[in-house]
Amino acid sequence: MNNSSNKNKMSKLLKLAHKFNSFYLNILKRKECCAFIVDGVQVGLIQTAVISKLSQYPNVFIVECNSVTLNPALRNYEERSIHVENVLRDMKEKQLFITLKGWRNECYDVRPMFSDKPLLKMDRSATCLFGICNYGVHINGFVNHPTVGLCIWLQQRSLTKQTWPGKWDNMVAGGLSVGNSVIKTAHKEGEEEASLTPNLLKNLKSAGTVSFFYESDRGLFPDTEFVFDLELPTDFVPHNQDNEVEKFELLTANETVNRILSSDFKTTSCPVTVDFLIRHAVITPENEPRFPELVELLHVPLQSLYSN
Amino acid sequence: MNNSSNKNKMSKLLKLAHKFNSFYLNILKRKECCAFIVDGVQVGLIQTAVISKLSQYPNVFIVECNSVTLNPALRNYEERSIHVENVLRDMKEKQLFITLKGWRNECYDVRPMFSDKPLLKMDRSATCLFGICNYGVHINGFVNHPTVGLCIWLQQRSLTKQTWPGKWDNMVAGGLSVGNSVIKTAHKEGEEEASLTPNLLKNLKSAGTVSFFYESDRGLFPDTEFVFDLELPTDFVPHNQDNEVEKFELLTANETVNRILSSDFKTTSCPVTVDFLIRHAVITPENEPRFPELVELLHVPLQSLYSN
Repeated sequence: MNNSSNKNKMSKLLKLAHKFNSFYLNILKRKECCAFIVDGVQVGLIQTAVISKLSQYPNVFIVECNSVTLNPALRNYEERSIHVENVLRDMKEKQLFITLKGWRNECYDVRPMFSDKPLLKMDRSATCLFGICNYGVHINGFVNHPTVGLCIWLQQRSLTKQTWPGKWDNMVAGGLSVGNSVIKTAHKEGEEEASLTPNLLKNLKSAGTVSFFYESDRGLFPDTEFVFDLELPTDFVPHNQDNEVEKFELLTANETVNRILSSDFKTTSCPVTVDFLIRHAVITPENEPRFPELVELLHVPLQSLYSN
Repeated sequence: MNNSSNKNKMSKLLKLAHKFNSFYLNILKRKECCAFIVDGVQVGLIQTAVISKLSQYPNVFIVECNSVTLNPALRNYEERSIHVENVLRDMKEKQLFITLKGWRNECYDVRPMFSDKPLLKMDRSATCLFGICNYGVHINGFVNHPTVGLCIWLQQRSLTKQTWPGKWDNMVAGGLSVGNSVIKTAHKEGEEEASLTPNLLKNLKSAGTVSFFYESDRGLFPDTEFVFDLELPTDFVPHNQDNEVEKFELLTANETVNRILSSDFKTTSCPVTVDFLIRHAVITPENEPRFPELVELLHVPLQSLYSN
């Protein structure tokens, strides 16, 4: 009852947390989806519109009343990955799903929980059709300015990016693709996106994770981001090397709050920034009456969502 | 399936997270409990052994098949608080519950979510009989030592404390009792427990919350702690003013990990310390393979547990 009746008492930040958890908080929509089963365990959730298309590939996907099962005849990581890729490429050609237009030629591993052995890999443009948990890495670049106080570097995403073009984002962000560790991804993306030198990256500090479950017209996005903080010298200015960034800007803490609340910020990057602002005492129990709820919505239980 | 089949792959820290979430992770036990309803909304969970005793007070508690409802004839905060207190004092005299032996003469507010208006107050020794969410404040006192690096001040609880006597705990910890704000509680406890001066407390930094759901032989403990960090000068030594502390000790980060993993640490204070060690890059994705799961178990969704 509280989620609805208290909605009018919500701060802007709590409304934002409901926005990036649009799917997590919608129990009814969750019930309408089917479990996606691979090798006997659930690894995702599939919406009705996707199920009807998958039923056209009965050699790969076994569609039943309450579940879609990857054919157990596909016995290992390689076999599963190849057969699923063939289906996805066929669906892409037939233009069945908008998300497949943005085929990335970059794969994510699919597994029940992060620490489990991957069961197959899948192009990252397709994981949202199966509600498979995405993992990524974000770096919060910040400066302790002698007069203005805490300042945060943000990037504007390139206008030609396949997803969220032109939107504001954290200084460095990237997906955890097959074969890359968390720390390796952080270093690689830091170098490519913001020209962080090995000397600067020495100060990179792991600071936790955020987890949330977002839904868009492309599909379902259960998302876990590994979070790093990086204090930068006041005279450092990030510049981009891979053409994925339009520009960078250094904002004060209050300007950052306003930016994430605007429609110009990538919705699915907000949790990382909100978490940073909480850990650095910008958002506090004194200025956010529903503080415990906000913190919980930055860490929804994705690792156990499919195992209970 | 994952929680059980993966148990042997768990790190010591993940096992600890399962220990302080003993009730949260036990779906079966949760199903055996009854909702506790006040003014039309659920505010707690009651175990079978408690229900049978409450049924002896039908003017106050209406025991039905799936719920225990506080008599709606008790119309406001004061009426509800007085009648519940009378029942609890009677149960204490009859020695029905071990937890009531430790009557505190200090009350917690009872409400569905933290930001909701309190519906009644209840002695803090009794809230675990009703599965009512407790709120508290912890201060992580730390030192950035020039040679040893990050060090953490811990306290050993007084040997005469009613709960967890002699166990190790965070430097400062206290419950959020009726009429006190989060920040006021942090300052009051910091002064009483560790002689933190106003000058030192200027550096107190809000850093988030942890939430978990523990069960002991005393009852059910859904618990949300507001977390503060306080960097201290290397020459500062905390000393206690309220006789609730046996002694203080300054530990390195690694010694702190070993201490929380030992049976000498108060189980329900571990989440705060684990969260601190994660935010300060001591526990990382590189040394904890089930890092995302560990972070989620520090922030279980208590605010929505009773409203869904």
